[in-house]
Amino acid sequence: MTQSSEARNARHKRAMQRKKAHVDERIANATIDKGLIVVLTGNGKGKSSSAFGMLARSVGHGLRCGVVQFIKGQWECGEQLLFQDHPLVSFHVMNTGFTWETQDREADIAAAESTWQQAEKLLQDNAVNVVLLDELTYMLTYGYLDASRVLDCLRNRPEGQHVIITGRNASQALMELADTVSEVQDTKHAFNAGIKVQPGIDY
Amino acid sequence: MTQSSEARNARHKRAMQRKKAHVDERIANATIDKGLIVVLTGNGKGKSSSAFGMLARSVGHGLRCGVVQFIKGQWECGEQLLFQDHPLVSFHVMNTGFTWETQDREADIAAAESTWQQAEKLLQDNAVNVVLLDELTYMLTYGYLDASRVLDCLRNRPEGQHVIITGRNASQALMELADTVSEVQDTKHAFNAGIKVQPGIDY
Repeated sequence: MTQSSEARNARHKRAMQRKKAHVDERIANATIDKGLIVVLTGNGKGKSSSAFGMLARSVGHGLRCGVVQFIKGQWECGEQLLFQDHPLVSFHVMNTGFTWETQDREADIAAAESTWQQAEKLLQDNAVNVVLLDELTYMLTYGYLDASRVLDCLRNRPEGQHVIITGRNASQALMELADTVSEVQDTKHAFNAGIKVQPGIDY
Repeated sequence: MTQSSEARNARHKRAMQRKKAHVDERIANATIDKGLIVVLTGNGKGKSSSAFGMLARSVGHGLRCGVVQFIKGQWECGEQLLFQDHPLVSFHVMNTGFTWETQDREADIAAAESTWQQAEKLLQDNAVNVVLLDELTYMLTYGYLDASRVLDCLRNRPEGQHVIITGRNASQALMELADTVSEVQDTKHAFNAGIKVQPGIDY
């Protein structure tokens, strides 16, 4: 080992000691234990996949999970294939497809309402540790569900229950209620370059 | 049904017909079928979870997957618990923990090198459909791995193989090589409000 690499390693060690002290302090200050609301919004790819990654983690830890997928259901999604028969997961899909496929506002509202009732059950069940409401934001943007009813139900859920909500254009009220909000920016998207949606990556 | 709600429904139907035509045209134009490089970067929560969501989808579709986790491995992650024994998944963890825990640059470099060799094997194996390189970007930022060697290996991988790469501060060269880049912005994070990391949600 040369003298300069020894010096470099020593500098690295000091810098990492300072960083560890900083990280440890932040961890020590994070003492609150609570059920979180996590909102994943923005125009980029990765909102629903992020939510299903948290579901994978939750199942890995043996937590009981409920999934309600709004909008989707036209084709077989990999996440549904993996989780729908898992003993820890209850899985509900709206199954009507996108609103530009149905082209029927009254039918969309009825489907949103009956799908929301599945969500309400999960949000009132204290045996359920994690609730994933995939693409919920569109139901609020389109006015298919009443926002204040949704927010009230989220506020009144069992203590310690985590809720993950995905979809573009999350409302200000929803983001204020949330503990964690991540906005996924669409920096580059294969689909815009003419590349087909890919099983595993896109659905 | 009142006249006005009839009119509203008809307007909705026309708007959705226009939207469907637009969406269908975009889908018809997306004809290229190829293995994608997806980069998930930015400071927000949801990069690794998004990657593991795509892994869940891929496993759901019966695809063969390889996972290499750089840095992590100090505690039991839910994604590891779920996938490490899955017949479709091969799982490798660097297992040294964060660089501010080891405080040992030479040991970090040796661990990065031996972990990268696992990644190289996957990136040369055309029986592997999806390769997830979790937290890889830090190995490049810290200079623990040679960037041009990593980029060459990505370029020369089997046709049709998807690669998902996560971590903050993805390099310009990596983002240029990628087909899809999502940047996760940290709009609000529970940890900053003193809330502990939560199993299922955070690990």
